[in-house]
Amino acid sequence: MDNQRATLAQIARAAGVSVPTVSKVVNGRPDVAPTTRQRVQALLDERGYTGRPTVRPDRAGLIDLVLRDLGSPWAMQIIEGVEEHAHRAGVGVVVSAAHGRHRSRPDRRWIEQLSARRCDGVLLVLSDLSGTQRSQLAELGIPVVVIDPAGQPTPDIPSVGATNWSGGLAATEHLLGLGHRRIAVIGGPSDVPCSRARVDGYRAAMNAAGEPIPSGYVRTGDFTAPSGYRETHALLELPAPPTAIFACSDETAWGAYEALYERGLRVPDDLSVVGFDDVDGARWAIPPLTTVRQPLTEMSAMATRMLLALINGEELDSRRLELATPLVVRHSTRAPG
Amino acid sequence: MDNQRATLAQIARAAGVSVPTVSKVVNGRPDVAPTTRQRVQALLDERGYTGRPTVRPDRAGLIDLVLRDLGSPWAMQIIEGVEEHAHRAGVGVVVSAAHGRHRSRPDRRWIEQLSARRCDGVLLVLSDLSGTQRSQLAELGIPVVVIDPAGQPTPDIPSVGATNWSGGLAATEHLLGLGHRRIAVIGGPSDVPCSRARVDGYRAAMNAAGEPIPSGYVRTGDFTAPSGYRETHALLELPAPPTAIFACSDETAWGAYEALYERGLRVPDDLSVVGFDDVDGARWAIPPLTTVRQPLTEMSAMATRMLLALINGEELDSRRLELATPLVVRHSTRAPG
Repeated sequence: MDNQRATLAQIARAAGVSVPTVSKVVNGRPDVAPTTRQRVQALLDERGYTGRPTVRPDRAGLIDLVLRDLGSPWAMQIIEGVEEHAHRAGVGVVVSAAHGRHRSRPDRRWIEQLSARRCDGVLLVLSDLSGTQRSQLAELGIPVVVIDPAGQPTPDIPSVGATNWSGGLAATEHLLGLGHRRIAVIGGPSDVPCSRARVDGYRAAMNAAGEPIPSGYVRTGDFTAPSGYRETHALLELPAPPTAIFACSDETAWGAYEALYERGLRVPDDLSVVGFDDVDGARWAIPPLTTVRQPLTEMSAMATRMLLALINGEELDSRRLELATPLVVRHSTRAPG
Repeated sequence: MDNQRATLAQIARAAGVSVPTVSKVVNGRPDVAPTTRQRVQALLDERGYTGRPTVRPDRAGLIDLVLRDLGSPWAMQIIEGVEEHAHRAGVGVVVSAAHGRHRSRPDRRWIEQLSARRCDGVLLVLSDLSGTQRSQLAELGIPVVVIDPAGQPTPDIPSVGATNWSGGLAATEHLLGLGHRRIAVIGGPSDVPCSRARVDGYRAAMNAAGEPIPSGYVRTGDFTAPSGYRETHALLELPAPPTAIFACSDETAWGAYEALYERGLRVPDDLSVVGFDDVDGARWAIPPLTTVRQPLTEMSAMATRMLLALINGEELDSRRLELATPLVVRHSTRAPG
């Protein structure tokens, strides 16, 4: 223990910060400036600081990360964040897709395998459990934390999300501020709370500005590029097409870009597009995408930290956390022509 | 056993194919037409066919997948392919990044954790092991299969790759065929065999066409967008800049797109770009990217199948496989203006 304190103090000194700040970085807490975090983390890595005393000997040292869909850049950033944080705690991450019939739940064999490999805890991403699965996990004593619940978040399962409603509001206010009035939205599945919240944020901004939402302007996609492509074509077929689109994921925005490109329309000259997520590709899109940033790395670190605490039998400060979603303005939006 | 045969026969009948074809799909072999594979897989899933008799009771039912870098769409497709195939065999996949100092090797704690969680086998992606790590794994009786070795493939470790040289050749021949002569290449790290092979394929095509390669036309990147961005700017500063660029990864191509966009140059009107990989984003780029397709899903399935065979003590038919890399022509290439 003294040994560990000495190390933290040394690192604090070398980084020119306080010991509590170093401790925040070690514990993946969000209230540290990015450059400070980087400097401290580099020192922690360099000096081989291995984080909290690793897993108890009666633990397998494994957590299960179950994602609704492995194919998206969004999923990749979650895996990266969870793996990095778990690695520091000496814990391995078993990654799987929800293979259940509805893609939103793991299938039946999953619990058997989980128990066979003596998994210590479960992180669910945009995914859900049946009532039976919940009680099975409770019986096995395996704690669960959810990132962006697919169903209504239940108070008995801790979860981490982003301020989706505020993000949708900010995206729409940005477009209104540029002078757009005919603004459409392409949401994700209507039964997914994070998508509903983004669309509600859009509605709230339109209502506050006194702008009516024309019929056909609220579209339902599934967060993928093909759905953005399809719904953008549908929007452009309307008698009065929009001058701006709020796409509820960056991948939806790629689909919108493609549909506009096919019709010879340019972004942002002919139509403005705002995305949601700020995945790596957003900066490299042509034109670079204005988007609402989901702090996926921080969300993953936070959820992993909560799960490791539960595995160690600790109490959580809070069972529901939402991290802020700043708007990142790039070149896909401008005043209507 | 009889039960299993009956199921395969039923599925073959329902799909209108032979039993050996169903068996090929079950075993993830590549010589099945995609539409047939899909139809058969749908029936297998529907009828809950769970693949080969699952893991032996003395196994943990876990394999470790170690990637050089978790951040790329390329990595995502590998994870997706491995997870899908392993899931069918009832095996969990522990995903980790190579946290070693050189990012190309897992760090020291990794072997301890591997052995603590009784991992059955290891898949390494664009990553390498030290001599010590190899002998430790051999002592523990843990088999290893490599996807795209980072160092020279060694005959004692089975590996799966793509026909990188032929891919580089085909990309360059495509540009030559369109009438380009001033063709540059942006490779990956020069010590990575798959990158060297792609650049050598480029050289071979240029030599065969009797085209000299101007000084400064062979650039070294690291497969990332920032390196493509940097090297494209450098190419355009040359006294006689190229009219076409062969980027050795799709992400490198995104960087090239961005640099060209910044300079007000259009793809393909002012400059043609060919990528390598055909990640999901290639189809959604503006303009859609002409690229060399790496069959990442098939490569992952194949490597997983080889590893599961080794875990079950079976002999491999071949210890080194290379899968074909067809050129996918989209809209980022045309004759020089």
